[in-house]
Amino acid sequence: MTAATAGADKKPMSKSKAEILDAAAEVFMKLGADTASIDDVARHLGATKGRIYHHFPSKGVLLAEVCLRAADFVHEVVGPAVDASATPEANLRRMIALHIPEILRTLPYHKVIIQSYVGMNQKSTTALERELFDRIRVERRQYEDIFRNILKAGIEDGSFREQNLSIALQSVLLLINAPVFWYKPRKNEPTNFVADLTDQLADMAVSALR
Amino acid sequence: MTAATAGADKKPMSKSKAEILDAAAEVFMKLGADTASIDDVARHLGATKGRIYHHFPSKGVLLAEVCLRAADFVHEVVGPAVDASATPEANLRRMIALHIPEILRTLPYHKVIIQSYVGMNQKSTTALERELFDRIRVERRQYEDIFRNILKAGIEDGSFREQNLSIALQSVLLLINAPVFWYKPRKNEPTNFVADLTDQLADMAVSALR
Repeated sequence: MTAATAGADKKPMSKSKAEILDAAAEVFMKLGADTASIDDVARHLGATKGRIYHHFPSKGVLLAEVCLRAADFVHEVVGPAVDASATPEANLRRMIALHIPEILRTLPYHKVIIQSYVGMNQKSTTALERELFDRIRVERRQYEDIFRNILKAGIEDGSFREQNLSIALQSVLLLINAPVFWYKPRKNEPTNFVADLTDQLADMAVSALR
Repeated sequence: MTAATAGADKKPMSKSKAEILDAAAEVFMKLGADTASIDDVARHLGATKGRIYHHFPSKGVLLAEVCLRAADFVHEVVGPAVDASATPEANLRRMIALHIPEILRTLPYHKVIIQSYVGMNQKSTTALERELFDRIRVERRQYEDIFRNILKAGIEDGSFREQNLSIALQSVLLLINAPVFWYKPRKNEPTNFVADLTDQLADMAVSALR
């Protein structure tokens, strides 16, 4: 499976399921995934708990599906953008230019990922939850591999400096995910804020590697 | 209060209190701060709950003190290293060269910080807990300001490129804290691993700013 076709085996998501995931991401972000309950999500959605349980058998599954969708969002946007004929630097810039607006567009999902970062597996008890968290790891790994390949190509062709690939990869990924930690949408945000932020982080990431 | 004297107003910590904080950091890291109990910390320490409650009136206070100490560790090592006569780049390299080994030395504390990153305040209910979390915010801000001043000086003297200072600051801080997310001490770790990691991240951070 290539990056561009990751997810091609997935069924399209129903509007109802997507709405529940949006609400869950919002509620988990605000209350913390540990504290928030299915009741809180239902209340936010103005729906019954039954509607949520129809799609998600437990809070653990709902949380896992939020994390999985977070990975899917960026993967589906960035994966197809890699151009085998472009330079590593051009590819990296293009990937970052798509990655950053996408994480800001789907910010609550990525905030939940951070919350769940440590000990994601400690609390998942059912087989279905474990299976979902395994899928999240695979999908994240696939997404990271798109970046790993570009960094590797850049080190090999000399456009990036000789360095430990894993450290470089983790550092670049954290750099381009940095806004998840601090970004808060503001009413009076300058219209070009996201574009400027994206440019600056692309510059920083490319410079950091050179 | 300058960076170098931050904490000068604090009483030295008793060995008993420091031992409890070390144990708490370890247990919170492993079990998750939400899941772990005072009982778990006592068991890890081979001590009674009473000994812990003698120093820390609640789990919330214990968690806050772990987070506060995490901030103190790096602040006390990095703060005094700033040399007003050195260039911004030389200062930044020196700060990073101290910061990274220190976060690896005190890794469990910093892993707990990540866990507690989102919604740190949502669960703190007592006045003492709120006061502690306010102090954490102040101390973290003071630590960030050391870096902010160096970045600002570098942009002003042209050694770093003209860019949004806040974005640059958050990005560099995340870059040099990246190992907290992925580093796991290994038995067969090459002896120069930490030194190489530190060099690479210092190179990346400085290059990212130029």
